Amino acid sequence: MRNEIPEISLRRLPVYLNYLKSLPIGNPKNISSGAIAKALKLGEVLVRKDLAYTTAIGKPKTGYEVVALIRAIEEYLCFYSVSNAVIVGAGGIGMALMSYKGFSNYGINIVAAFDNDQDKIGTMIEDKPVYAIEDMSKRVMEYEVKLAVLCVPVEVAQSVADVLVDSGVKAILNFAPIQLRVPDGVKVRDMDVAANLALLAREL
Amino acid sequence: MRNEIPEISLRRLPVYLNYLKSLPIGNPKNISSGAIAKALKLGEVLVRKDLAYTTAIGKPKTGYEVVALIRAIEEYLCFYSVSNAVIVGAGGIGMALMSYKGFSNYGINIVAAFDNDQDKIGTMIEDKPVYAIEDMSKRVMEYEVKLAVLCVPVEVAQSVADVLVDSGVKAILNFAPIQLRVPDGVKVRDMDVAANLALLAREL
Repeated sequence: MRNEIPEISLRRLPVYLNYLKSLPIGNPKNISSGAIAKALKLGEVLVRKDLAYTTAIGKPKTGYEVVALIRAIEEYLCFYSVSNAVIVGAGGIGMALMSYKGFSNYGINIVAAFDNDQDKIGTMIEDKPVYAIEDMSKRVMEYEVKLAVLCVPVEVAQSVADVLVDSGVKAILNFAPIQLRVPDGVKVRDMDVAANLALLAREL
Repeated sequence: MRNEIPEISLRRLPVYLNYLKSLPIGNPKNISSGAIAKALKLGEVLVRKDLAYTTAIGKPKTGYEVVALIRAIEEYLCFYSVSNAVIVGAGGIGMALMSYKGFSNYGINIVAAFDNDQDKIGTMIEDKPVYAIEDMSKRVMEYEVKLAVLCVPVEVAQSVADVLVDSGVKAILNFAPIQLRVPDGVKVRDMDVAANLALLAREL
């Protein structure tokens, strides 16, 4: 089941992909989990387990066919079923995410950002438009976006989340240090920097 | 044990604190977990469990003494044992974190940032200096900083982490989409935005 891949494994899949794509085409034709493990300084068993989440099949002596393995990882990472997402709040974190190149490796396509700063509205960041927050509901429905990254100030996070949910958003990655209240069926993942730092600090 | 508090509970403690501090001093003198729960739209049992991580003691009928509860939460959140931290990489995310006001609620004090951008080096962001990355090792040792937030580009993340570890850093909050290799005894927590978005997308 796709949903059950551990986060840590999911994060390694693009690493394997980048490595495999860095190899000259057709050389080698096949590669073993041991060779991948060695190149990336990972454990061989770990590599084999990670790759087992994809449809790739390694054979006992020859290993994986490189082309098939690339294809299987790409497929797993949803290269062929891209999810559109919007960024709400084009402040420091929002802007950084607009410019981040790594989303496509995970099948994520950032389609637009929303902000209330007149200097930003109407501009493009990395070919992606910044729209007025007033237009968010309309645009989200228009794009049929189900995925949003919330980077607005904490004071408005809940009300903005409410609008997103009313507009059809089903999953929110939340950077605001607040526990969002959302209806059943809407998923939230929190990226609370301060809480994570505090947890690290406690382990010192 | 401090280390065992679930992240979700830790994140709620500042919420309780803000609420309690918003009450007029001495009115009420005592507050029940039920009243806190109602005000914050949380479950009463949940509130009681969260507060049980602190040294606060609620009495059956009167509840918690407000002043003592504030004190207990602050104490738990390490107001009295602040951890210094540095931010490495003053790009979008790094800059956003420099300006973030919420760290002090978790006992985190950002002392400085490091970057290689000549336009940023020597400037102050929210009263915090931005130093040259070449000076990082020296400064980290000088400040005896054990905690670092890594917001540098993925290509240099590992080498920067190596320098941090060599300079005495024991815990890294890592925003770079890479699995850092660190020696035993050094903790890493990953804040991988793309992987988290991908995990949400899979649940749609």
